[in-house]
Amino acid sequence: MQVNDVVAYIQAGRDRFVADLKEWLTIPSISADPAYAGDVRRSAGWLADYLRAQGFPTVEVWETPGLPAVYAEWPAEDPDAPAVVVYGHHDVQPVEPLDEWDTDPFEPVETGDRLIGRGASDDKGQIFFHTLGLRAGLAASGRPAPPVTIKLLVEGEEESGSVHFAELLRDHRERLACDAVVISDTTMWDADVPSMCTGMRGLTEVEVTLRGPSRDLHSGSFGGAVPNPLHAMAELLAALHDADGRVTLPGFYDDVVPLRDEERELFARLPFDEDAWLRTAGDSRVAHGEKGYTTLERIWARPTAEINGMWGGHTGPGGKTIVPGQAHAKISFRLVAGQDPRKVQMAFEAWVAEHVPPGIEAEIPVAGGGVRPCFSPIDSAGVAAARRAMERAFGTQVLFTREGGSGPEADLADILEAPLVFVAVGLNGDRIHAPNEKVEIPLLLKGAEAAAYLWEELATALR
Amino acid sequence: MQVNDVVAYIQAGRDRFVADLKEWLTIPSISADPAYAGDVRRSAGWLADYLRAQGFPTVEVWETPGLPAVYAEWPAEDPDAPAVVVYGHHDVQPVEPLDEWDTDPFEPVETGDRLIGRGASDDKGQIFFHTLGLRAGLAASGRPAPPVTIKLLVEGEEESGSVHFAELLRDHRERLACDAVVISDTTMWDADVPSMCTGMRGLTEVEVTLRGPSRDLHSGSFGGAVPNPLHAMAELLAALHDADGRVTLPGFYDDVVPLRDEERELFARLPFDEDAWLRTAGDSRVAHGEKGYTTLERIWARPTAEINGMWGGHTGPGGKTIVPGQAHAKISFRLVAGQDPRKVQMAFEAWVAEHVPPGIEAEIPVAGGGVRPCFSPIDSAGVAAARRAMERAFGTQVLFTREGGSGPEADLADILEAPLVFVAVGLNGDRIHAPNEKVEIPLLLKGAEAAAYLWEELATALR
Ligand SMILES: [Zn+2]
Ligand SMILES: [Zn+2]
Repeated sequence: MQVNDVVAYIQAGRDRFVADLKEWLTIPSISADPAYAGDVRRSAGWLADYLRAQGFPTVEVWETPGLPAVYAEWPAEDPDAPAVVVYGHHDVQPVEPLDEWDTDPFEPVETGDRLIGRGASDDKGQIFFHTLGLRAGLAASGRPAPPVTIKLLVEGEEESGSVHFAELLRDHRERLACDAVVISDTTMWDADVPSMCTGMRGLTEVEVTLRGPSRDLHSGSFGGAVPNPLHAMAELLAALHDADGRVTLPGFYDDVVPLRDEERELFARLPFDEDAWLRTAGDSRVAHGEKGYTTLERIWARPTAEINGMWGGHTGPGGKTIVPGQAHAKISFRLVAGQDPRKVQMAFEAWVAEHVPPGIEAEIPVAGGGVRPCFSPIDSAGVAAARRAMERAFGTQVLFTREGGSGPEADLADILEAPLVFVAVGLNGDRIHAPNEKVEIPLLLKGAEAAAYLWEELATALR
Repeated sequence: MQVNDVVAYIQAGRDRFVADLKEWLTIPSISADPAYAGDVRRSAGWLADYLRAQGFPTVEVWETPGLPAVYAEWPAEDPDAPAVVVYGHHDVQPVEPLDEWDTDPFEPVETGDRLIGRGASDDKGQIFFHTLGLRAGLAASGRPAPPVTIKLLVEGEEESGSVHFAELLRDHRERLACDAVVISDTTMWDADVPSMCTGMRGLTEVEVTLRGPSRDLHSGSFGGAVPNPLHAMAELLAALHDADGRVTLPGFYDDVVPLRDEERELFARLPFDEDAWLRTAGDSRVAHGEKGYTTLERIWARPTAEINGMWGGHTGPGGKTIVPGQAHAKISFRLVAGQDPRKVQMAFEAWVAEHVPPGIEAEIPVAGGGVRPCFSPIDSAGVAAARRAMERAFGTQVLFTREGGSGPEADLADILEAPLVFVAVGLNGDRIHAPNEKVEIPLLLKGAEAAAYLWEELATALR
């Protein structure tokens, strides 16, 4: 396959590609708002038709108890070739506040190299580059089918929590059998600093109530002589981190896959402007976190404990000199590769039971299952292959990032038992989930080019 | 003066005394509810008439910007005799919840030795025993005037915070010039364990806001890499006490008048049932407080810091994985003899400034003036004299208590520059401020008897 052929095919297809994407972007497939359920279905139908027109031999709309996904399969010629699931989503975020949009969110506008509209970057544009890339690869190679079997799975409920997605994966597990999952729903560091995500933090949330006296007591009569649950809560939560900013739950770090020197070194090459980042962090005045790690390492690759909310006693205006009966807190843990949400919940429960002082009773409601972290080592076969494809397209070194939070990615990895490979060309500046979402058309075309090389690289790497 | 004469006079006057008190108790002098302002005025007028009828040469109603006090003076024959202010209040607490009263709160009912009605114990009954006692003393001594000049000051706003009382004291400072202030608005340990209060804790209240990011941040993107104000609050408030339960503000204990061995020994003689007390403390499961002190010492004679309220971040249902922008807390300090509310506020401000971590901004709104503590050593002339009077009346040893909270007592001591002496016969079981308030008539008569001896004892002690 000649690079020149791929590039020429993509350039020739540019206008048609943009026109088709614009048509899809007019469909307001907002999954979080039931009023738009019909539009999400219409979006699925539109995509199915489009994929058929692009040549996918098999295209199906997969129903869920909620909103439908689209499944399209293009088998490799060689029945022993690897199979790859490509994941994206066709639903979009709500558009509020509408008055902050400069144009109608569902009347996409092309201005120079930009395409503005809801879903342009997240995630319709990023699904779209795969179709162009696949056709470019086929054209350049002169073959009728890709070197790996491609199983495109485009969810319709990602922006409303992927509530039925795990079930969908389990229901279709055999058809989705694969050797790798390519995720195209993340971002690169910057237009001139191409990068790939290699992991996403998981999450578990807990709540704790500490009970002291059965009612609020007058502090004149009782203050200083009975346990105060707010004191106990302050002491408990203060003890959740040590002086180095490390979480003190026993065993919390035991399963953590440590950051490797190479990955740290590659993170460090990213042109990170900490002051600018702090400004985006609500004008936070200083970076703060686990000792021995940089800010990027902290938000991407290190687990945390955050108090999300805390309350008890008199919280209204004026004073009320009481020893309150109860104190409450909500805490969430961000988890990284190797950690199990359920295990962290259990460690927290045991730790609270051990740390609660005499006379205070702790109650911890059963927590939800949480979100598992996901991670692909940078030297794994799939990541290395995708990096080569990206570097061929961008003509420069591709660096690595991770993400601090995640969606259904761990389900894909765990249920399909396949490694994840993140290939995406969105930018942090694309204003996804915000007014005036846009995408850079040249980056979508670079994405198509990378996708064209990707199947070839993966066919070799995964065999 | 013969004991028998005093007792006989009081016994003879009992029915008239109870009948008069019942008449006064029918007036709903609730100072906290503006709807009853006319009744508080009627109560003042009724008391003024009554005191005139009891023989006080001077009786005046003293207006304030709020509700009136009653002032009555009975000069000693000897112009060089000491003067004593007697303090009480003629306003009463609201009666809600009304449906928990077994009888109408303002239709006093006598059942056996009990008189039930709002104000029976707090504080109309306790003012009343002074009039009977004074007349009994005069009758028994056969003299037309008491051995000290008596200046009875009966406030009308005690149950609504004594908001104009300090001003009233300053306005009438010269007429109120005295050698001691007798307070009759507290309780004894028990009917068969007579006791005197010797001090009341003061109070200062502070609030603190800790600010981190200018908005709530998504913990996936920022968690673990910027300061979280709820963590900072937990750490700050956990650091407010050391492992021995002592308050860590520098200098907090410097001015504290230490408990003397004799007072501790006398406290220890009180038949204190800690388990029963814990049940009244909202079924608190254990006593807890400053190491090295008993529960009674902790609530009466040791200063404290209590978190009264704490809040920040997401406090509603469900989870919200944020790093919140702000955390808040309300804290009150109970203060004991020697401590100054303003100095404690300043120590708190300095301590917060020093302990707040980098990247977190602390804001402490200017606090109110607080309430100063008050205290009379058990071997002071006034306390010793009153104790002798009480022991003569009760025929048994009189022990000592203190109170954990206070009203306008420190203002009396500070503005009139006179030592306080607490003489009262209310009981903790009198249900003051609660439905079915009552008083034990035999104790009021004992109070009258103690009051009869009191002026004689004080005349000698204060001269
Ligand atoms: Zn997305
Ligand atoms: Zn009172």
